[in-house]
Amino acid sequence: MTPVPAAAARNLRSVAADRRRKDGMMTQKEIKVPGFLASGVSAGIKETGAKDLSLIYSEKPARAAGVFTTNAFPAAPVVVSRQRVRRGYAQAILTNSGNANAATGEDGYFDALAMGSALSRCMNIEEDYVLVSSTGVIGHRLPLDEIRKGIPKLVAGLHPEGIRDAEEAIMTTDRYPKLSIRKRMIGGREITACGMAKGAGMLQPHMATMLAYVMTDADIDAKALDLAFRYGVERSFNAISVDGCMSTNDTALVLANGVAGNRRIEERGRDFIAFRGLLTEVMTELARDMVRDGEGATKLLEITVEGARTAGEARKMAYAIANSNLVKTAFYGGDPNWGRIIAAAGAVGVPLSVDSVELFFDGVSLFRQGRKTTGNEEILKEIMSREEIKVLFRAGRGKKSFRVFASDLGLEYVKINAHYHT
Amino acid sequence: MTPVPAAAARNLRSVAADRRRKDGMMTQKEIKVPGFLASGVSAGIKETGAKDLSLIYSEKPARAAGVFTTNAFPAAPVVVSRQRVRRGYAQAILTNSGNANAATGEDGYFDALAMGSALSRCMNIEEDYVLVSSTGVIGHRLPLDEIRKGIPKLVAGLHPEGIRDAEEAIMTTDRYPKLSIRKRMIGGREITACGMAKGAGMLQPHMATMLAYVMTDADIDAKALDLAFRYGVERSFNAISVDGCMSTNDTALVLANGVAGNRRIEERGRDFIAFRGLLTEVMTELARDMVRDGEGATKLLEITVEGARTAGEARKMAYAIANSNLVKTAFYGGDPNWGRIIAAAGAVGVPLSVDSVELFFDGVSLFRQGRKTTGNEEILKEIMSREEIKVLFRAGRGKKSFRVFASDLGLEYVKINAHYHT
Repeated sequence: MTPVPAAAARNLRSVAADRRRKDGMMTQKEIKVPGFLASGVSAGIKETGAKDLSLIYSEKPARAAGVFTTNAFPAAPVVVSRQRVRRGYAQAILTNSGNANAATGEDGYFDALAMGSALSRCMNIEEDYVLVSSTGVIGHRLPLDEIRKGIPKLVAGLHPEGIRDAEEAIMTTDRYPKLSIRKRMIGGREITACGMAKGAGMLQPHMATMLAYVMTDADIDAKALDLAFRYGVERSFNAISVDGCMSTNDTALVLANGVAGNRRIEERGRDFIAFRGLLTEVMTELARDMVRDGEGATKLLEITVEGARTAGEARKMAYAIANSNLVKTAFYGGDPNWGRIIAAAGAVGVPLSVDSVELFFDGVSLFRQGRKTTGNEEILKEIMSREEIKVLFRAGRGKKSFRVFASDLGLEYVKINAHYHT
Repeated sequence: MTPVPAAAARNLRSVAADRRRKDGMMTQKEIKVPGFLASGVSAGIKETGAKDLSLIYSEKPARAAGVFTTNAFPAAPVVVSRQRVRRGYAQAILTNSGNANAATGEDGYFDALAMGSALSRCMNIEEDYVLVSSTGVIGHRLPLDEIRKGIPKLVAGLHPEGIRDAEEAIMTTDRYPKLSIRKRMIGGREITACGMAKGAGMLQPHMATMLAYVMTDADIDAKALDLAFRYGVERSFNAISVDGCMSTNDTALVLANGVAGNRRIEERGRDFIAFRGLLTEVMTELARDMVRDGEGATKLLEITVEGARTAGEARKMAYAIANSNLVKTAFYGGDPNWGRIIAAAGAVGVPLSVDSVELFFDGVSLFRQGRKTTGNEEILKEIMSREEIKVLFRAGRGKKSFRVFASDLGLEYVKINAHYHT
């Protein structure tokens, strides 16, 4: 093993420490959502014996919405859940980790159905109300026997405070669990939104999947839930970049069971805006955590492009910067390489004037009026040692903006991804 | 320094050995083109004292065509040469290495003009007939004094066999020179085409530039030269991927001086097709050499997508595979990871049927009819140890294809790019 550069190692340790402190503050008790039970057990799918079967259950059928991978080769459970979620209702999310049930042909499709069917029978709920997800190795048949045997134990473990177990059971190579919970007064009641996630396909080796589930007790109509969820996904899970790769299994789901008894949220107005904000906050926190937990990541980069003429333009430039290996390696090495950022933004085909663009790191100017800004070498050096850096690129063409969360690219990324074997 | 994995080190050594053998065969004498002189000297721009001023000169004004970076922030010499090449004639290509004259504002533009003007005065040729290029560090003013002092020595060194010196003087971090020469009977005469190049911006640290110059003695009209050159560039320099980054200085130029006395080549017909083929062969050899010489590259991947409905579709999928860090690291690690390739092709938005796509490495099937092809483990293992691997993805939708040359992504890439400091 190559030693990680000292600064990077320090960052890793300190990120982990921050995380532990944060986890410590968020005690088991606080992670629950009215009307929801959850559970996570080991069913023997993972060779390590770690938890690998996860269940989220709403005591009453909940409004449901989902966003799935746009990969042309979706895994079998994606095909099944995408179809079911269109009806707008669901009651359970059943996930196994350790096997992705991807590239398994028609057999895989029937295995995904069988997995949902086993839960539906065990809990006596409608089959179409069970959403299924899988994550892990691809190209292997799902171990249905293990899953079938694990389900009764999984159901028996359902508990209002089981969300942590459910989260643990969807993890694969994640270094720590990703949970976020927020509350806000909406429509006369306190609404809770709680999300759990595992590392994105973009971050992980062997195409591991991004899974994210949000539970809320809000009462909201189907159209409004779908709109609010898509809005949030666009600004969170669809705004992260580690290596630009998209998995066959990526899935984000939301269940809203309405037990809060608020004034029903419809697709416009103050309540809708407030609820959409709540969802987006929860999902953004999960997305940041995914990037931070990217294999080999030592830095979290928040890359904002402002002053674009359209949102699409802003997105294109932000992603060009975020996905550039030259930019990523510069941050890993602690080099404030403004040239690579300017060149990346300039390469996407948006006409930019070199005299109008500006670049800032954590508020400090690096480039302006066609030239490097001088005189901040010491401050820049200090900024480059930070674990989180805000990169702001002003395109000088308009009023639209877009923000992407990205990791750096270090030696660990290459080692993990080169040495994993199919 | 981390030790490179044994297999990778072996590859590096053996690539270098191949290269030396090949260079040995192509003796100094053979590299010349009727009517062209060339020269390369050290003018003191590079701190190392290596050659840094390069000149290609045609004894009579030549037809000229060029393709330049589409980056929104082109370097000053790109702005100057792009303008001049539009007239369709040129007589000299003057290049300095060690300083890119990029991000230098209006001063840089005047410096680029001044550099060309110094040569024009020294050789008594029209100022507009001098094309200029620069490559090296960005954000610093060009050392005009050194360039002005170097020019008389450069001109004095002009020689029909000076192409190797000229090539050496455009190199920056390249590990070996890149030269290609081919001859073919066209329009009743033997036509020579000879190209030189330096590593692509896509490959190198500090955004070093791709420069490529082709000299030919063909007699060809302006429109035909432009068409043939663009056709070749599209299939060579525009079909390589190391990290997908585009430099501010990328420049490809061709000069055709007509001294072969062939039947003039016009924009259609057999002669045109033959000449276009000749140019494309020369440029493709240079492009392959650029990828092979990419910083940290241990493998050359030839990625072909067949069976697309349009060429654009084929190109998009080929680049998605070629630019995927997950794919690149798998090849570096010697893992025949078909899943990453299928997923990369599936992610670009082209509707593919998993049952119709196929994947081959050097002719051996890996994936077919929705599943991994079994039974070739030993052969695959051997293929993965090769220095050059042909990846063929069949999309099963149509008849169009596209080929991209790509390198793998290894530890050396990260080290070089993380530890370079601006």
